[in-house]
Amino acid sequence: MPLRPEERDAIAAQRTLQATTRRTTVEQLEEVLYEAFPVLDHGFVRVVDYMGSDTAIVQAARVSYGAGTKQSRQDAGLIRYLLRHSHTTPFEMCEIKFHIKLPIFVARQWIRHRTANVNEYSARYSILDNEFYVPAAEHLAAQSTSNRQGRGETLKGQEAKRVLELLRGDAIQAYNHYQEMLNEDINGETLASNRQGLARELARMNLSLNFYTQWYWKVDLHNLLNFLWLRSDDHAQYEIRAYANVMLETLKRWVPLTYEAFADYRIGGANISAKGLEAIRRRLQGENITRRDVGMSQSEWNELNALVGNDHSD
Amino acid sequence: MPLRPEERDAIAAQRTLQATTRRTTVEQLEEVLYEAFPVLDHGFVRVVDYMGSDTAIVQAARVSYGAGTKQSRQDAGLIRYLLRHSHTTPFEMCEIKFHIKLPIFVARQWIRHRTANVNEYSARYSILDNEFYVPAAEHLAAQSTSNRQGRGETLKGQEAKRVLELLRGDAIQAYNHYQEMLNEDINGETLASNRQGLARELARMNLSLNFYTQWYWKVDLHNLLNFLWLRSDDHAQYEIRAYANVMLETLKRWVPLTYEAFADYRIGGANISAKGLEAIRRRLQGENITRRDVGMSQSEWNELNALVGNDHSD
Amino acid sequence: MPLRPEERDAIAAQRTLQATTRRTTVEQLEEVLYEAFPVLDHGFVRVVDYMGSDTAIVQAARVSYGAGTKQSRQDAGLIRYLLRHSHTTPFEMCEIKFHIKLPIFVARQWIRHRTANVNEYSARYSILDNEFYVPAAEHLAAQSTSNRQGRGETLKGQEAKRVLELLRGDAIQAYNHYQEMLNEDINGETLASNRQGLARELARMNLSLNFYTQWYWKVDLHNLLNFLWLRSDDHAQYEIRAYANVMLETLKRWVPLTYEAFADYRIGGANISAKGLEAIRRRLQGENITRRDVGMSQSEWNELNALVGNDHSD
Amino acid sequence: MPLRPEERDAIAAQRTLQATTRRTTVEQLEEVLYEAFPVLDHGFVRVVDYMGSDTAIVQAARVSYGAGTKQSRQDAGLIRYLLRHSHTTPFEMCEIKFHIKLPIFVARQWIRHRTANVNEYSARYSILDNEFYVPAAEHLAAQSTSNRQGRGETLKGQEAKRVLELLRGDAIQAYNHYQEMLNEDINGETLASNRQGLARELARMNLSLNFYTQWYWKVDLHNLLNFLWLRSDDHAQYEIRAYANVMLETLKRWVPLTYEAFADYRIGGANISAKGLEAIRRRLQGENITRRDVGMSQSEWNELNALVGNDHSD
Repeated sequence: MPLRPEERDAIAAQRTLQATTRRTTVEQLEEVLYEAFPVLDHGFVRVVDYMGSDTAIVQAARVSYGAGTKQSRQDAGLIRYLLRHSHTTPFEMCEIKFHIKLPIFVARQWIRHRTANVNEYSARYSILDNEFYVPAAEHLAAQSTSNRQGRGETLKGQEAKRVLELLRGDAIQAYNHYQEMLNEDINGETLASNRQGLARELARMNLSLNFYTQWYWKVDLHNLLNFLWLRSDDHAQYEIRAYANVMLETLKRWVPLTYEAFADYRIGGANISAKGLEAIRRRLQGENITRRDVGMSQSEWNELNALVGNDHSD
Repeated sequence: MPLRPEERDAIAAQRTLQATTRRTTVEQLEEVLYEAFPVLDHGFVRVVDYMGSDTAIVQAARVSYGAGTKQSRQDAGLIRYLLRHSHTTPFEMCEIKFHIKLPIFVARQWIRHRTANVNEYSARYSILDNEFYVPAAEHLAAQSTSNRQGRGETLKGQEAKRVLELLRGDAIQAYNHYQEMLNEDINGETLASNRQGLARELARMNLSLNFYTQWYWKVDLHNLLNFLWLRSDDHAQYEIRAYANVMLETLKRWVPLTYEAFADYRIGGANISAKGLEAIRRRLQGENITRRDVGMSQSEWNELNALVGNDHSD
Repeated sequence: MPLRPEERDAIAAQRTLQATTRRTTVEQLEEVLYEAFPVLDHGFVRVVDYMGSDTAIVQAARVSYGAGTKQSRQDAGLIRYLLRHSHTTPFEMCEIKFHIKLPIFVARQWIRHRTANVNEYSARYSILDNEFYVPAAEHLAAQSTSNRQGRGETLKGQEAKRVLELLRGDAIQAYNHYQEMLNEDINGETLASNRQGLARELARMNLSLNFYTQWYWKVDLHNLLNFLWLRSDDHAQYEIRAYANVMLETLKRWVPLTYEAFADYRIGGANISAKGLEAIRRRLQGENITRRDVGMSQSEWNELNALVGNDHSD
Repeated sequence: MPLRPEERDAIAAQRTLQATTRRTTVEQLEEVLYEAFPVLDHGFVRVVDYMGSDTAIVQAARVSYGAGTKQSRQDAGLIRYLLRHSHTTPFEMCEIKFHIKLPIFVARQWIRHRTANVNEYSARYSILDNEFYVPAAEHLAAQSTSNRQGRGETLKGQEAKRVLELLRGDAIQAYNHYQEMLNEDINGETLASNRQGLARELARMNLSLNFYTQWYWKVDLHNLLNFLWLRSDDHAQYEIRAYANVMLETLKRWVPLTYEAFADYRIGGANISAKGLEAIRRRLQGENITRRDVGMSQSEWNELNALVGNDHSD
């Protein structure tokens, strides 16, 4: 478990908080509020605040529809409708705040999602902890030979052993030298009285991209769905997917109706091109078509077949 | 008061909600949650949800400063520091959601603030209420003669009377014709059985810009401060300023420390140019300078003197 | 044609500009640069500046792929790949600036797309022209009876005639009273010497939502595609679709490869849910399934069948 | 100079491009288009495209002011006015695209400016170059003793020597191990035939934060000014300031009138609080006041005096 005793105590203290509010609350999410869900070897995901619920989405949409819609559609149906038709603004009415601990190379991918609010722990002002990511044996993958963007088989034997030694050894050395250059230990105690210590904003550059950082990350539900859709996908790097998967569990607690619609339309759904739709239409009418009949490339054709089942014609 | 009985009841019902939460709560704001504060002749401002507090800002900033800052600065001092040095991200960690009723021409100015989430009541799907803005006598201003962007003296007598007649008369007629074209009354009852009724999305174009609309508007604290700074300013049109001023009161309840820092640095503060700073420096050293000595235009010079007191040299 | 002689002259003068540049240029777009393409009865779309081309997208993506990708995929293939896999950042590297004249109610829908830069002609400072939108006979639609959000049949005979009279009559009267309240004609000449004239920022509220406004609208290609996808859709109101359709023509001139991929994947494509994919898979395998077998609602089932062809089972 | 021969050739080739355009062009900027301006030991800044000019700002603002403003203010005056009164939208009508090479720890600060478009060279797909930043002797600063956020004196003698050895040694080792884990050299040649090679997306995590990355960065002028204001400031870390200062030179070439206004109002100007304005007013009236008379903290008082000259009372 990634927490130090004082951190565990701080979280336990937060979890005893209890106040009365007139705001919408979601019991399922309150249950795990502030709790640290472990991710990778030293990371975590914590929900530290939230605003809104499935009901808030419906309520916001009903301003859009106003007195005009008299039939009381079920909330689930309306939420499905909104998601299906890309009516995204009602989902923006919900907001959630996470506290995340994650390797820097994951943070670098994550931050590309610009429509969120971020406060990151600053190694310019503070000393980073001696914590770095080393992949578990089963995630130590070779470069894919077919796909420049992916992983292949798991490394085995000597090669795996050597890679882990290098990653660990270099990180340990980088941190030792970081402290030596700072001339401070983690508590800010001076190490050698005859040295000044390099500025923190400079010393940090010696740390490698697998060191952990942490931040508060706040986002509205629409943009969270977008993040989770992209980052829980098979094409996403495993290390960020691990975070997305844990966050999907908190999504389920927070807005269960939205979660279900999202699972159906986005996670499990797919965008089919005009050519793809034509291919499906013609196959459903019994035509025996090849990819050339609809002008698709081989990789598009393969992607389509992976979605709707193999044909036997190509 | 702008509310209909059924709206008043709905709000009263919301205000009886009571739940237990582990989240940060702000009692001063809870007190007025959901309450409709009247603005102009038919508008209102309601706070319908919020996330965070002054404490959340400090907490977010402390992630930035982390274990590095050991001296426990007072929260107020840290908040002042953050605002003074444009460290804006901690303020983004707080979020607030308003329900606003406002004339369309005000909504058109308001929507230019793009970093907010909006769900507006749609006249494409629904029928708008018969409510339009007519300025109170004391706000019926003539065009400024000196400033193309502002108002001059209040209109008096016959001219004022005529303007009010025109505004009222045209709005009443526009709404009557809107209903006639729709061939529906406000409850959706058909008016004449031998007509089809114009599509709502078309009929609405007959309404004038002083008709009221409403929306949910959700924004983070940093962008709210920016909105309030620009829209509570003397240069802002009175009608939007009226909203900003009511919202400032809710800001004060929600984040009193931030409010105070904001009042000092932004509302009451000013940006002084390099030339302006030079002029001040030289005057403080006893020099008797003119605007030409520092290369300022007449209007810049006047603006500076309005801020720091008149000189006697120009 | 919506232009006044002095406007036509100004545009003709712009079109004679000629400079030498090292920047990427697109001849097909240069040909129509500054030209006003008419939309609705008084509106137009003009491209007034642009940055980038299909080549710029490929170049930006190649920074992403860098020296790592050695096989030289064809540009068209890469652009299709990027669009298919939601790799949207390379499209953000292109930018375009339009000058648009449009009815205010259309502008109100348009402005909801927040990721664009806008400068609108201000009726707070200036006097609006006497130009308002009245639908052509074939666009004067009744409210849809099946769909609260849409249009039904075209209005005919007396009802159509009456609607046009009301729209025209009210707009003419609104503008006359606008000028009377301002006490100024369009050239700023005072009408009556014994009146002060209402402030412009107030008088404008008497104008109805079909009056024309204009703005510069600047957007990156990724967000433009999103705008065009949503606004050229059948569900969009006809009046904004008319603009989107004209803008699609300029898109085709500017980035023809992107246009083609966009037409295939977005305009002609569709998002199919997990349930929809299951239904297709099973039908392709010869199963005779109903919507209940995959848990779809009637409207979802109808939407799916509209895309891939009717089945005979439900 | 940071460029390899093939890069130098590619840039030289770009600089021979010549096309005719109807668009606004800026000769001063065209002169240096595509040129690589060196920054730090291996970085550079290149302008690779632009849209607009000082004239475009004025033109966009004139849509805002429209026919209403008849007096032809000088462009410089209007641009100063817009900047002084925070009328920022006309500046958004200009856009610029840079190609930047920079250390990863600088990229991590930079990316916090969210309102820009970015395409970064991906170490997930490609192999990073063997280039890392080591501070020049005069920038090898100790931690400030008075200010947790800043640098103190320059390190000297043995300590400096040791820091440079550590930074260089660790980076060289990190890169060697990176290649060993990849089992590829920079050209993609396999190193040992009996190993698979670690996936690129994993191997990169061994590199330290001083390694160089590169990206295309596109931004509008308003947001560029904001970036340059914050990052050319004394409080910004030297390494990012080095980039901001080079970019200021390109700003001067591109929009000289805006540059001048920006230098006066933003770079050389300052925000003074209500308390600060009161202090100045009273001192100008000859009062001998202390910081307590206006309720300022010691640090605020010092900051004010640094701007407008020391008083003798505190």
